[in-house]
Amino acid sequence: MLHIVVDAMGGDNAPAEIVKGAVLALNERKDFGIILTGDENLVRAELGKYKYDASRVEVIHCSEVITNDDVPTHAVRSKRDSSLVVGLKQLKERDDVGGFVSAGSTGAVLTGGIMFVGRLKGVQRPALCPAIPNVRGGVTLLCDCGANAECKPAYLAQFGIMASAYAKAAFGIQNPRVGLLTNGTEEHKGDPLHQEAHGLMKDLQSIDFAGNIEGRDIMYGDVDVAVADGFSGNIALKSIEGCGKTVGDLLSKEFRKSFGSKLAYLCARKQVGKLKYMLDYNRFGGSVFLGLKKVVIKSHGSSKAKSITPSVLQAVDAYRGNLIGMLADMLAETAPEGADE
Amino acid sequence: MLHIVVDAMGGDNAPAEIVKGAVLALNERKDFGIILTGDENLVRAELGKYKYDASRVEVIHCSEVITNDDVPTHAVRSKRDSSLVVGLKQLKERDDVGGFVSAGSTGAVLTGGIMFVGRLKGVQRPALCPAIPNVRGGVTLLCDCGANAECKPAYLAQFGIMASAYAKAAFGIQNPRVGLLTNGTEEHKGDPLHQEAHGLMKDLQSIDFAGNIEGRDIMYGDVDVAVADGFSGNIALKSIEGCGKTVGDLLSKEFRKSFGSKLAYLCARKQVGKLKYMLDYNRFGGSVFLGLKKVVIKSHGSSKAKSITPSVLQAVDAYRGNLIGMLADMLAETAPEGADE
Repeated sequence: MLHIVVDAMGGDNAPAEIVKGAVLALNERKDFGIILTGDENLVRAELGKYKYDASRVEVIHCSEVITNDDVPTHAVRSKRDSSLVVGLKQLKERDDVGGFVSAGSTGAVLTGGIMFVGRLKGVQRPALCPAIPNVRGGVTLLCDCGANAECKPAYLAQFGIMASAYAKAAFGIQNPRVGLLTNGTEEHKGDPLHQEAHGLMKDLQSIDFAGNIEGRDIMYGDVDVAVADGFSGNIALKSIEGCGKTVGDLLSKEFRKSFGSKLAYLCARKQVGKLKYMLDYNRFGGSVFLGLKKVVIKSHGSSKAKSITPSVLQAVDAYRGNLIGMLADMLAETAPEGADE
Repeated sequence: MLHIVVDAMGGDNAPAEIVKGAVLALNERKDFGIILTGDENLVRAELGKYKYDASRVEVIHCSEVITNDDVPTHAVRSKRDSSLVVGLKQLKERDDVGGFVSAGSTGAVLTGGIMFVGRLKGVQRPALCPAIPNVRGGVTLLCDCGANAECKPAYLAQFGIMASAYAKAAFGIQNPRVGLLTNGTEEHKGDPLHQEAHGLMKDLQSIDFAGNIEGRDIMYGDVDVAVADGFSGNIALKSIEGCGKTVGDLLSKEFRKSFGSKLAYLCARKQVGKLKYMLDYNRFGGSVFLGLKKVVIKSHGSSKAKSITPSVLQAVDAYRGNLIGMLADMLAETAPEGADE
């Protein structure tokens, strides 16, 4: 049976919300199992709160936890018995394990992923790729959103290839349109990094390049993939997140102001709820770490159960949708000789 | 009497909406006049549609228009009789002119502003600085949001100084808190540009530096000023714009779906309207171009009258709030010798 490893100790709400989210995922579908890595006593205490098929759950005890205060590169080397490192090693070593989910330190997931799972052949830099809901009711994949603060033009071109494979494998988008996120739509816009990346992407046969796009096109445009350097991609993602949170807060505040506005809320709650649902990108799961030999998913550090559940199911779907195979194929088609570093 | 120059031919909706917006501003306050630059026949035809005090309006005929298809550096040199260049020259030469507003080509406003109005002493790079509504009901100033796609650390530090002066002069914020927009809050985050800028800003006595901030903090955090390089600042601004537009569209769509949802809208329209108002950053006017010897305001290219009116009033307020004097003082306090380039 396919297994997904869940880092039970990663994130602000571990292990309670992580275990709960994993169990909910398990109860939603019957065709996979879960391996929880973490402090066995704590994890079993949380598991004890729920009903589930115990034959589909493994717990692997680990004595250490990597926190956000740890220096990632040091932590993944020194904390060999941490829930994160042990989990990644399970992913690497076991054929029945198809994916790994963690809400822990982003830096440690990235460093550990590269170190213990390894890059696919031809990948220059793996990249984080979340799915952001757009105005068309679909998603726009934003790649990279933070794994690589400093990029070279060739990395950006490869992000376009990897995210296209992801759009096909996980979202069934046949011919994903790929835009390059810059400060204007004209071809000459951007700094030298993005100008040069534009030139490379225009020549790529394997992607459908739509040219430069602006920040507003992530949610409002007609591309399926927005390619970004990790620095500005991260800023775009979090700007959208802040705007969404602000809207939600202001709306709640308005509807709570008076008896009349509370009544208004009763009338409009269905529509407001629908809006909140559409904007909630947690329902698409976490950010996939594209470019590794197996499926690694980074869930938000503040993830609660309702974010962990879709992350686990996303790992199942990405595995079954043959994400890794498609990535490998598209990279092999386009990778220049000697692109490995 | 104080005059504000308005480029009547700049933007997608010129001259109709520009003239309308200028007249509305005129009729809102009695203590200033307007100079419209543009095709006199067209401008007078638009003016003829409204009631206003003709003694407070001048029209200066120009035979040319700079469009978004023009190359900015070339256009401001060759189209000397364009509404933009003639307007900027009025601003430069006349003591009774306190500000300039255009919804025309951003590049041309920036290039023309530097060429014809000139930089304040000590300014390395002027920067565009819009005001973005935040969850606290106030504004966060985002500087730079697109004037400088490529920056040096010292530019970023100076953006912090200029935007602080703007926060004081135009928004009455006594002690503005300044954050540096990067991909994480920890001090070591970001690329070398932002790491070095962080070091410079930490040492500045003239600003209240709050450290690194993330994209979500623009609307959701507790800073008054977000300093950004023009590339990622532009991406942040437009990502927020796209998210706001998406929310507005989805909400309208939900409320239009059925008879029941239309009824729900009737109940909730006051709250939804309030939300839209709070998120509408056009009500704060355009982006001030900070660092010039006089007040230059760039209104959105798609500006309608309701965006031009606050931009004109913003120019009046910035002039009367002594923005330029405060900028000059803060720059003189902190500018290192020889910072002029």
